[in-house]
Amino acid sequence: MSKVVLAFSGGLDTTVCVPLLKEEYGYNEVVAVTVDVGQPKTGLKEAEKTAKKLGVEYHQVNAKKEFVEDYIKPLIKANGDYEGYLLGHAIARPLIAEKIYEVAKKEKADALAHGCTGKGNDQFRFEATFKHLTQEMDIIAPIRDMNLTREEEIDYARKNDIPITTEGKEEWSIDENLWSRSIEGGKLENPSFEPPEEVFEWTNSPKKTPDEPSKIKIRFEEGEPVCLNNKELDLIEIIKKLNQKAGKHGVGRVDMIEDRILGLKARENYEHPAATVLQEAHKDLENLTLTRNQLNFKSNIENEWSDLVYKGLVVDPLFEDLNSFINSSQKNVNGEVKLKLHKGSIKVISRKSENAIYNQNLVSFDEKKLDQKHAKGAIKFHGIQSRNLKNKKGD
Amino acid sequence: MSKVVLAFSGGLDTTVCVPLLKEEYGYNEVVAVTVDVGQPKTGLKEAEKTAKKLGVEYHQVNAKKEFVEDYIKPLIKANGDYEGYLLGHAIARPLIAEKIYEVAKKEKADALAHGCTGKGNDQFRFEATFKHLTQEMDIIAPIRDMNLTREEEIDYARKNDIPITTEGKEEWSIDENLWSRSIEGGKLENPSFEPPEEVFEWTNSPKKTPDEPSKIKIRFEEGEPVCLNNKELDLIEIIKKLNQKAGKHGVGRVDMIEDRILGLKARENYEHPAATVLQEAHKDLENLTLTRNQLNFKSNIENEWSDLVYKGLVVDPLFEDLNSFINSSQKNVNGEVKLKLHKGSIKVISRKSENAIYNQNLVSFDEKKLDQKHAKGAIKFHGIQSRNLKNKKGD
Amino acid sequence: MSKVVLAFSGGLDTTVCVPLLKEEYGYNEVVAVTVDVGQPKTGLKEAEKTAKKLGVEYHQVNAKKEFVEDYIKPLIKANGDYEGYLLGHAIARPLIAEKIYEVAKKEKADALAHGCTGKGNDQFRFEATFKHLTQEMDIIAPIRDMNLTREEEIDYARKNDIPITTEGKEEWSIDENLWSRSIEGGKLENPSFEPPEEVFEWTNSPKKTPDEPSKIKIRFEEGEPVCLNNKELDLIEIIKKLNQKAGKHGVGRVDMIEDRILGLKARENYEHPAATVLQEAHKDLENLTLTRNQLNFKSNIENEWSDLVYKGLVVDPLFEDLNSFINSSQKNVNGEVKLKLHKGSIKVISRKSENAIYNQNLVSFDEKKLDQKHAKGAIKFHGIQSRNLKNKKGD
Amino acid sequence: MSKVVLAFSGGLDTTVCVPLLKEEYGYNEVVAVTVDVGQPKTGLKEAEKTAKKLGVEYHQVNAKKEFVEDYIKPLIKANGDYEGYLLGHAIARPLIAEKIYEVAKKEKADALAHGCTGKGNDQFRFEATFKHLTQEMDIIAPIRDMNLTREEEIDYARKNDIPITTEGKEEWSIDENLWSRSIEGGKLENPSFEPPEEVFEWTNSPKKTPDEPSKIKIRFEEGEPVCLNNKELDLIEIIKKLNQKAGKHGVGRVDMIEDRILGLKARENYEHPAATVLQEAHKDLENLTLTRNQLNFKSNIENEWSDLVYKGLVVDPLFEDLNSFINSSQKNVNGEVKLKLHKGSIKVISRKSENAIYNQNLVSFDEKKLDQKHAKGAIKFHGIQSRNLKNKKGD
Repeated sequence: MSKVVLAFSGGLDTTVCVPLLKEEYGYNEVVAVTVDVGQPKTGLKEAEKTAKKLGVEYHQVNAKKEFVEDYIKPLIKANGDYEGYLLGHAIARPLIAEKIYEVAKKEKADALAHGCTGKGNDQFRFEATFKHLTQEMDIIAPIRDMNLTREEEIDYARKNDIPITTEGKEEWSIDENLWSRSIEGGKLENPSFEPPEEVFEWTNSPKKTPDEPSKIKIRFEEGEPVCLNNKELDLIEIIKKLNQKAGKHGVGRVDMIEDRILGLKARENYEHPAATVLQEAHKDLENLTLTRNQLNFKSNIENEWSDLVYKGLVVDPLFEDLNSFINSSQKNVNGEVKLKLHKGSIKVISRKSENAIYNQNLVSFDEKKLDQKHAKGAIKFHGIQSRNLKNKKGD
Repeated sequence: MSKVVLAFSGGLDTTVCVPLLKEEYGYNEVVAVTVDVGQPKTGLKEAEKTAKKLGVEYHQVNAKKEFVEDYIKPLIKANGDYEGYLLGHAIARPLIAEKIYEVAKKEKADALAHGCTGKGNDQFRFEATFKHLTQEMDIIAPIRDMNLTREEEIDYARKNDIPITTEGKEEWSIDENLWSRSIEGGKLENPSFEPPEEVFEWTNSPKKTPDEPSKIKIRFEEGEPVCLNNKELDLIEIIKKLNQKAGKHGVGRVDMIEDRILGLKARENYEHPAATVLQEAHKDLENLTLTRNQLNFKSNIENEWSDLVYKGLVVDPLFEDLNSFINSSQKNVNGEVKLKLHKGSIKVISRKSENAIYNQNLVSFDEKKLDQKHAKGAIKFHGIQSRNLKNKKGD
Repeated sequence: MSKVVLAFSGGLDTTVCVPLLKEEYGYNEVVAVTVDVGQPKTGLKEAEKTAKKLGVEYHQVNAKKEFVEDYIKPLIKANGDYEGYLLGHAIARPLIAEKIYEVAKKEKADALAHGCTGKGNDQFRFEATFKHLTQEMDIIAPIRDMNLTREEEIDYARKNDIPITTEGKEEWSIDENLWSRSIEGGKLENPSFEPPEEVFEWTNSPKKTPDEPSKIKIRFEEGEPVCLNNKELDLIEIIKKLNQKAGKHGVGRVDMIEDRILGLKARENYEHPAATVLQEAHKDLENLTLTRNQLNFKSNIENEWSDLVYKGLVVDPLFEDLNSFINSSQKNVNGEVKLKLHKGSIKVISRKSENAIYNQNLVSFDEKKLDQKHAKGAIKFHGIQSRNLKNKKGD
Repeated sequence: MSKVVLAFSGGLDTTVCVPLLKEEYGYNEVVAVTVDVGQPKTGLKEAEKTAKKLGVEYHQVNAKKEFVEDYIKPLIKANGDYEGYLLGHAIARPLIAEKIYEVAKKEKADALAHGCTGKGNDQFRFEATFKHLTQEMDIIAPIRDMNLTREEEIDYARKNDIPITTEGKEEWSIDENLWSRSIEGGKLENPSFEPPEEVFEWTNSPKKTPDEPSKIKIRFEEGEPVCLNNKELDLIEIIKKLNQKAGKHGVGRVDMIEDRILGLKARENYEHPAATVLQEAHKDLENLTLTRNQLNFKSNIENEWSDLVYKGLVVDPLFEDLNSFINSSQKNVNGEVKLKLHKGSIKVISRKSENAIYNQNLVSFDEKKLDQKHAKGAIKFHGIQSRNLKNKKGD
């Protein structure tokens, strides 16, 4: 009796994995598990239905709370951004993998399986966490290890009467969670193909957005969003509301070229209205409350943090080190930021903070508190080494 | 007989400097010089008129060509950006200072003067270049060294019958050149004061922008913009046209908190439609044509480059070193990028390049050229150190 | 009645300050305070004697414990190093300034004073802490503000019958604390002047060192030294013993060119046997216990940490952020390192750790546990982007 | 008829490869090629003899000149250093691979082969260059792909009457070129095993070094060593002489833990007297001639440069970009450095440069040219943001 637990989304890849795990890998029992990290309810139901049709044991694990607390909050504080990608899916993978492992442990399974292909990033992210958690269970990746194309999978599904929803029409490969929606594949693989409006679901086309702008106000405490328009809300609620509000104004689309872990460049499209708004607001508040030294150095921390998350390497002790820095840096990131959403654009229009490193008395051209003559001494030494190099006797 | 050459914009500060240089500093002769780096013609005429009223020798130096070739091109290739500020004015200062010095040399002047206050950045930028070019001439900054406020300057002007245009109404302090327009001072000093529409001149309010989006296409060669919508144009022309086209769609506004050189944080507003478009397009093309290693490291180069330019330290030999890196990195940045401008938003919608590091055969989910199984070996080692730390016997 | 508290070392500068503060600045009362951060006992006694001769109130504050716990331990974990300088004196300044301020507060003084010149770094370090702690007390720097040279100070002392020990012979300017001894000034200002043996006091000349090498073993826990040669010791004791042991073998001399805060380059000589040994050992142990990702990124943290300490900016919140990172990174830095000291050279010869990221089974050429073929998959993608750029069809 | 060209050192691995390529891989013809990058003559002769015994076509390619000009010079200017390893062997691999490929092209070979194992770094380095140069030739790595241990290789050699020199006694794995000698394997794999004196050949044991120190003087022009003790010499000659001179004094040993490309940590021992001397001298001269901004930023460039070289990724366009920066930075690195070698220790004792950023008039405590009072203005702003954060009204 051998048992495997499969990370199951109900899409083509993971659906095909079920019979493959039995027939090609010889597992007696396949347990399909969907981890709920905020993807749409319809998708979750669809997954459950498909699992039932496939006749396997099926679980759904609600990880939304952990997702927001343990992953999205650090992401916001870190201004997580990899080449312009806000890490929406990357950030969910380690948690999904952990939840899959927990089921497997409870089920006393012999193996863990995922449906990732061998060209993408998720195989790295899943397996880094799987291998970190267990050295006893086998790790199986049928699509990759059998080198299957989408077409071959569809063929196989048809021949074996596997319930797949695509039926040829599903041109795009979609992934969703609370934070982000990604669209890739098909004609979009071509970097010069303009994405048609139909691929977007979370954001309105600028043409369909309201003619009047909306203003929103977000309050942060220690770098975490706590109020939306003066109303104290749970972060899950803030994100849901912002996805709706900002999506209505067409805010949060990204069309980009991305360097995958293996070194392949790929064209990617994302939608994430709340993520765009929160990052814009958080950065602006940091500009007001962090010292120049902090801002300048934190950008290195952010790059490294984002690189680790992109690679799924949150198990590296460096990840915890970086988070220690980030948490320390957020102590003064308290205050509120007002933004205007309009026709796909987002602008910060005002901000204030009880910890602002800002002193109107010092900076104003109308104030004399700071004697301007002091600057003369500072300038005396500005660029002095370059002058010294040129003029051996000068200063 | 002593002579001083003054960097003259015709604004309040530099206008007041003229009599101060004579009366307070005792110069017999003041030569006022305006350096043309693409500011509006009306401003240039106004400056000339004011200089004549003041009764001093006046020159205008056309430096537009050098500005674009020697400063704007490197800025585009460097994706110049300091905390979100695209460096529009900072980048012009060293050139203005150089031109002022050249006039002073020709005029056999004893001193160089500028009208900067002691709270801002320009005093650093002007003097770093001045002192680098000469150790013989004195450098005079009357407003700073006499610690004058705006109000005191206006008082002085009135009492001494100095022709100033403000007459109380000029609420904002404006600076313009080909690349950028800045608005600061007055109520805008308060970070939570929302900028009224009246402060903007280069960009339409979203409400007044066209209902239909515009698409534009920019071609780069070795990182430099060379064609706009398939038409080969001089970079000055491209910038002028883009300022108009993108400004019409309300693109290119920035409202931010900025860390000045002295450590004061200040609220700043900028407009720079062409700069926004060109940087967006250039970065996108780099994502397609630079290796991940280049992209990742170039971001450090860009930060350092921007920091030096912000501080006016282009005389530091590091500046040339950074430009050597940047020029080398741009060899493959050839291709074109299409963008959509609409209601204040800007989106890249497609891109292509003869040097794209992109291979549809490798990356496509529908292709078998790259055997997915290879990835398994790579994953074997992904995160291995973290596992090793946890599990002394494992791999 | 006005009172000033002076940071007093008993050297020429601070001795001269006492009458200057009375006569030139008009303070009725000068309180001289020496902060004990491990400088030699003879120096402390000398300072006391001089203060008495000067007829002022005098205090000595023992800050050795805080120096080691709050400053030296973080320095060791941070591998503190500025251009090769191990930060021996920079690290003591903020603590000394704090202690001076505490006395001043207790004494209800009106002002704080220091004897730094206007060319060095210590003025920045003292005043950054002073100003951070108080905005009410004045800060006085007589030597700098009166622009005095050494010669002028000696003249003044003679004329005013001030007890100075130099009497012309004191050619070098010396500074000492538990961690380091610096020698500068006089002929040593010339970078091409070879330092004579007489300037060194903590380290033997190689010619006088023992012919037989010594081996020492240091145990670290969470990055802190806890045992010397298997004997558990307080860090103060470890440092004292290592200064003696390694100094005997001539270990720990540094002769360097250093970039001062103001931009002047200066030639500096240092002796710090314990610092050299502890840093060498600590780095070696980190190489064994930190992941490559940690090691690589921590070097950025270390540079920034060292830069802040050099500038005396431990009040910047960034300093605490960096320390949060560093403390997190040290969790696994447990183990021991053996070193050989001989004739001025120091070599790590062996190390071991219960947290070593080292697995002889994996790395050994004699083991088969790790199938070498896996590497083939990893290599498949090594450098793939460069190939793609060159050969559009290849992989 | 199929032909393979093998990178041949004459050691166990490559010797065993010859019959394997014929018998296991079915090549009709094996061409063995040794690339001379300055390894000892005896080794080259040995390799030739072994190749003859094996009965294959054999070539030796003299690449010493290119090695020094194209690889060692950039390495010196870059202060190449990976975790303390001076990159001696890594730097030679791309050139060796290129030379092997050139022979293969001339010989119209079908494949390229190397003898690297699957645990080390050289497989990555060889193949990154091989694959960059050709997509037509196969790349064969028999030892790795057959997962052979050293013991298995020896067994195979004995059974098949292959001429191997080891005969069980060769406890260490040695690699040598002009720049460096490495020793690894056997008992040295254990990080806590102290290396016995017998493993070293280029450096004297401190006990056998001369009792009198030697002083040497090196002159650099644009960062390149051009004179040794006032005698103009070719860089090959300078390196040879320094290896001898400094090796005699026991200078240049490194014992370290190194992070291999695959993520395995390994213990490594190196000897490289000339490399140690030249790097020490070069860095010291840079401290005198580069601005603080250059020094600080160049350290990032050096880390990245060293990382690329370690990984064998000199084909990445980033490598050329980094070299552009480095070459630009070396313009002023002209001057001479004097060092003392004694009993394993190396100390810079003096330096001078016609481009020194050093001005005794400014820095000296005995000079008044630079008015110390100027510093007061600079200090006014030092740490101002931290104070502002704490005290909202202050400055």
